[in-house]
Amino acid sequence: MEKSKNGYECWLSYGSYAVHSGNREFQKFGGCISMPRESPILTAAAEEWSRAMREIFSIQTEITHSLPEKPCILLETNTGVPGDQFTIRVEKRQPFPYIRITGNHDTSTLYGVFELLRSIGLGKSPAEAETSQNCRNELRMLDHWDNMDGSIERGYAGRSIFFHNNQVSKDFRRIKDYARLIASVGINAITLNNVNVFSEGNRLITERYLPDLSKITDIFSQYGIRTFLSVNFASPLELGGLSTADPLNQSVQNWWKQTVQTIYQFIPNFGGFLVKADSESRPGPYTYGRSHAQGANMLADALKPFGGLVIWRCFVYNCHLDWRDRSLDRAKMAYENFKPLDGKFNSNVILQIKNGPMDFQIREPVSPLFGALRSTNQIMECQITQEYTGQQKDLCYLVPIWKEALDFDTRADGGCVPVSHILDGTQFHTCHGGLAGVANVGDSPFWTGNPLAQANLYGFGRLCWQPGLSSEEIAKEWTALTFGSENPAAEKITGMLMKSRTIYENYTCPLGIGWFVNPEHHYGPSVDGYEYSRWGTYHYADCKGIGVDRTVATGTGFTAQYPPQAAEIFENLKTCPENLLLFFHHVPYSYRLKNGETLLQHIYNTHFYGYDGVVKLKEIWLTLKGKIDGEIYEEVFRRLDLQLEDAREWRDVVNTYFYRKTGIADQLGRKIYP
Amino acid sequence: MEKSKNGYECWLSYGSYAVHSGNREFQKFGGCISMPRESPILTAAAEEWSRAMREIFSIQTEITHSLPEKPCILLETNTGVPGDQFTIRVEKRQPFPYIRITGNHDTSTLYGVFELLRSIGLGKSPAEAETSQNCRNELRMLDHWDNMDGSIERGYAGRSIFFHNNQVSKDFRRIKDYARLIASVGINAITLNNVNVFSEGNRLITERYLPDLSKITDIFSQYGIRTFLSVNFASPLELGGLSTADPLNQSVQNWWKQTVQTIYQFIPNFGGFLVKADSESRPGPYTYGRSHAQGANMLADALKPFGGLVIWRCFVYNCHLDWRDRSLDRAKMAYENFKPLDGKFNSNVILQIKNGPMDFQIREPVSPLFGALRSTNQIMECQITQEYTGQQKDLCYLVPIWKEALDFDTRADGGCVPVSHILDGTQFHTCHGGLAGVANVGDSPFWTGNPLAQANLYGFGRLCWQPGLSSEEIAKEWTALTFGSENPAAEKITGMLMKSRTIYENYTCPLGIGWFVNPEHHYGPSVDGYEYSRWGTYHYADCKGIGVDRTVATGTGFTAQYPPQAAEIFENLKTCPENLLLFFHHVPYSYRLKNGETLLQHIYNTHFYGYDGVVKLKEIWLTLKGKIDGEIYEEVFRRLDLQLEDAREWRDVVNTYFYRKTGIADQLGRKIYP
Repeated sequence: MEKSKNGYECWLSYGSYAVHSGNREFQKFGGCISMPRESPILTAAAEEWSRAMREIFSIQTEITHSLPEKPCILLETNTGVPGDQFTIRVEKRQPFPYIRITGNHDTSTLYGVFELLRSIGLGKSPAEAETSQNCRNELRMLDHWDNMDGSIERGYAGRSIFFHNNQVSKDFRRIKDYARLIASVGINAITLNNVNVFSEGNRLITERYLPDLSKITDIFSQYGIRTFLSVNFASPLELGGLSTADPLNQSVQNWWKQTVQTIYQFIPNFGGFLVKADSESRPGPYTYGRSHAQGANMLADALKPFGGLVIWRCFVYNCHLDWRDRSLDRAKMAYENFKPLDGKFNSNVILQIKNGPMDFQIREPVSPLFGALRSTNQIMECQITQEYTGQQKDLCYLVPIWKEALDFDTRADGGCVPVSHILDGTQFHTCHGGLAGVANVGDSPFWTGNPLAQANLYGFGRLCWQPGLSSEEIAKEWTALTFGSENPAAEKITGMLMKSRTIYENYTCPLGIGWFVNPEHHYGPSVDGYEYSRWGTYHYADCKGIGVDRTVATGTGFTAQYPPQAAEIFENLKTCPENLLLFFHHVPYSYRLKNGETLLQHIYNTHFYGYDGVVKLKEIWLTLKGKIDGEIYEEVFRRLDLQLEDAREWRDVVNTYFYRKTGIADQLGRKIYP
Repeated sequence: MEKSKNGYECWLSYGSYAVHSGNREFQKFGGCISMPRESPILTAAAEEWSRAMREIFSIQTEITHSLPEKPCILLETNTGVPGDQFTIRVEKRQPFPYIRITGNHDTSTLYGVFELLRSIGLGKSPAEAETSQNCRNELRMLDHWDNMDGSIERGYAGRSIFFHNNQVSKDFRRIKDYARLIASVGINAITLNNVNVFSEGNRLITERYLPDLSKITDIFSQYGIRTFLSVNFASPLELGGLSTADPLNQSVQNWWKQTVQTIYQFIPNFGGFLVKADSESRPGPYTYGRSHAQGANMLADALKPFGGLVIWRCFVYNCHLDWRDRSLDRAKMAYENFKPLDGKFNSNVILQIKNGPMDFQIREPVSPLFGALRSTNQIMECQITQEYTGQQKDLCYLVPIWKEALDFDTRADGGCVPVSHILDGTQFHTCHGGLAGVANVGDSPFWTGNPLAQANLYGFGRLCWQPGLSSEEIAKEWTALTFGSENPAAEKITGMLMKSRTIYENYTCPLGIGWFVNPEHHYGPSVDGYEYSRWGTYHYADCKGIGVDRTVATGTGFTAQYPPQAAEIFENLKTCPENLLLFFHHVPYSYRLKNGETLLQHIYNTHFYGYDGVVKLKEIWLTLKGKIDGEIYEEVFRRLDLQLEDAREWRDVVNTYFYRKTGIADQLGRKIYP
């Protein structure tokens, strides 16, 4: 495939970094790296620095082992302290100042190098680049849903970069470039294969594939990234020839121990297993009358001697619901399955909880498991790949969604307890935590299909590292690094990103209701597409109103899963955040929102606004022709056209749907097809 | 796969034929066949007779070449007369009477043998079996939508019996059994492969596959069945390395001539090509600015020297419609594409027209092309495989649908012109005609998945041969032959078959509206599933009414495609057949039907009735336990359970849909979920 250099190198397109009076000062430090100690990770750090200096300033970098008699970058690692920390200081040694990057591990030092390069890209001077950073999120993980045949579940950026045709990829250059990219934003863990493990994917944990896999994991190791694998809970049956996968069965336990031992022979720093069990027809411990804790702990016991982790997904619900029974509520099910197990998981088990209680809709409340689990390691699962958010055809900057979730005050114990404090372990003193994002990457020349979707990959990593950053700060960083800090296009693109989530929400699913999508592929509107399904995904629209009553008073009682102060807010129609109104309440179309609009008129309005918003995005984009990389320009342009068509379809289908249901016309007389 | 003998042998389960005083008389004739002439087809006929005698009467049959001095069956062919005719006469020669079967061709003689065996199965005496039959439908064809990989498009009975894993099948026994089955009901033409020709299917017309194919076509030939192949109109590009498939291009024409020559080297009685062109994104002559006549005639020229035919499908429509534009009407498109070409097709081109203007819905009016085309060979395409009619899980006896179409009076020229007279050529003196049915057969142990779906395969053939038979007569024949003419179960099953179409219609799509199905796979309800799609498949339900206005006065004007007297009937709300009301008119829910019900109440009623009907089908079936072949019993029982679940889903989804849309309750207070 033809590669756009800028598009392929993403935010590490050093050659496009603008140089001016501020960051030009780096040039004098850049020609020398002092590295008293050597390690593969520090070598990678030095290599990255050298590459950057060559591309930014056209200078060669020399590497020394002691502090030289000239300006330089000193890479230093003080081992011993847990966590990830680094400092960047300009040491004013006369006459040869130097920049000291000190990490508590080699990986942190590497992060310091990337931070310094980012500072250059953002146009900072060395003095402005001084920083001391300490990341509390231990796991900053990417989950790839890649299949061995090369397809990617919910992938919108081409084929897998790890697998093709049931072989492990040998395109090590691309994998190294990927490792550089994600390490540069602090990612330190990766799962290579789909959580739905089937056919050849089952055998990934066997000697058939481990030798080839180890070549990939070595590359990631050099960038401080531990590799995980998704496993099939029924592997003892599928691979081991056993007649059960019962976690309490001795032979099953032994089989897993043996399997884990073999894996570590090939991958000494193997991260552990990611498991989707008893979910959407996947096998799991329920088959054997065992709990998820028993299932997870059995795997944890096998991994423990090697320092491995079990990451166990909480996306467990009955996917054979009866739409007729309004008392059933999929939103309640993760909590119902896992809250009773709080405290029963081994210390090397981590529960992976989706940000919301449903499934990556454009707007959901935070999962009530956050705040409910107090004695269990937990990480939040976010979806970077845009399954329900436009599939990388439509522009949708997702960082605001994750940021909202991190900032959500669970009000656990009646106090102020944001989700971010639960994930980083400070609130409940859990020993593992962090975030996992489902990757949006494939063999696309831009990695992410839509070049602007790189902002989500970048943003996910940055937000994991510094949850205090605002969505806009992250967007500004990404546009500056990608298009040049001095490029006026960067500000315009930041504006596009910042508006994009609201625009997408406007033309799709109003007020938290979700699920107006076409079944199966999940692109484009079908208001009733999931309405009578078995998936628990309903809106209950009739000729009078719409929404899911999840109150304790008259509905499914989902609100009670939140701590009382949060529950009360959602329970009450008047205090419920309006953008989640239909998630929590069934509301008549005549209901007046705070701005005075009726609910129906709000639906009409937002859908017109949403389409108009895309028109504006395209207008802005048109002004960028010639101002940015041509291939990025053309690719985004093409996708904005697709988005415009999608938004038009959404606007008209949703408006017509509600017009047909109510017979009530738009108050502003805009065109609604009958 | 385990085979149920009765289920596998279908209506040729001679061993299950009941023997009693009437048909026992055949025993004395059965021991000898006199066959003055030999031919492969006559040999097949004698073989069939011998097999039947062995299985029915446990007697061996001797074959002689002159008329023997004992009772016998005389097989005689008087060649020369066109068409398919045979007579069966009991010749009272003393002291040794014999039964004379005289066909105008060997194939007709074979049909006579099958007719005689059918008479035995139906319990007739030799005198009652006397008959003289003359079939006017020249082509009685089955179209298989089988892919080279073994899958079957819209197949619900297992994998292909012709192809697997991109190879032509070598299971000749099964193919011979299939040839016997379909020849026994008069089928004389078959297309082996899917009309959507892709990947390896493109090469079926090359020397890579022709040698293997010829082994199959030889088997069919022995039963008087000519084999056709579906071809990709773009074959000159796909296979020939040409840069165009323009039908007026000399190289293209030569390529097809060469290809046809090669085919006839391997398959001397090759039937010809079936072509889906310019339809649902298939290539076709429109790509080159040519008409369908130019496309078809080019192929016809290549086939002409060998006596081959081009069967050209009229299922051509714009499949990128805009639901917003109510003036667009897919129902009009076949007519619009082909009516202007009437008279422009070569004499060996036949247009294949679906029975209705849409696509095999449970109820549609007859395609207006019948009656409009007067100088064009035409056959009617029926769908035996139950794509939209329950997919062989649900019981749906389809003969009534085809029968209604055959009997429909087109009122062409203001006279009484039933479709059947157009198809058999008597009306417009066209030189080729008949029917084609999309087969419902796979490698299922019952051939058709649901054993009762054999009735549709049987019925299609019988109806082609004798369009004057009633649906019930055909059902009675099939049940008698399959379960025994003396078996009380046969009458009950006939009753089930006869009620099944109404039951299915009741719980699915009311009054001709169609398309309430789940997109893509087409099983189960989704009322809005196709409502905002590009496929031209709308119902326009809003809070006040439902239906497609296809009138000239206020609608799409589709009615004008019928001859004036027919058009007038459909145009007028009061004279339009009520079972097609919503196909032709947009009607308020409060509209009173002739029985006094409102339209809405009719929808509710029929959906309750439909489900109740399935309950009754199951009750009847339960009484048959032990009375019929056990494997057939169990298989149908299992499917009736699936049907019950399907009917319940349909009933509740459709009723809830309209209740939510109108807010009007059922007058009888039955449960409609809110």
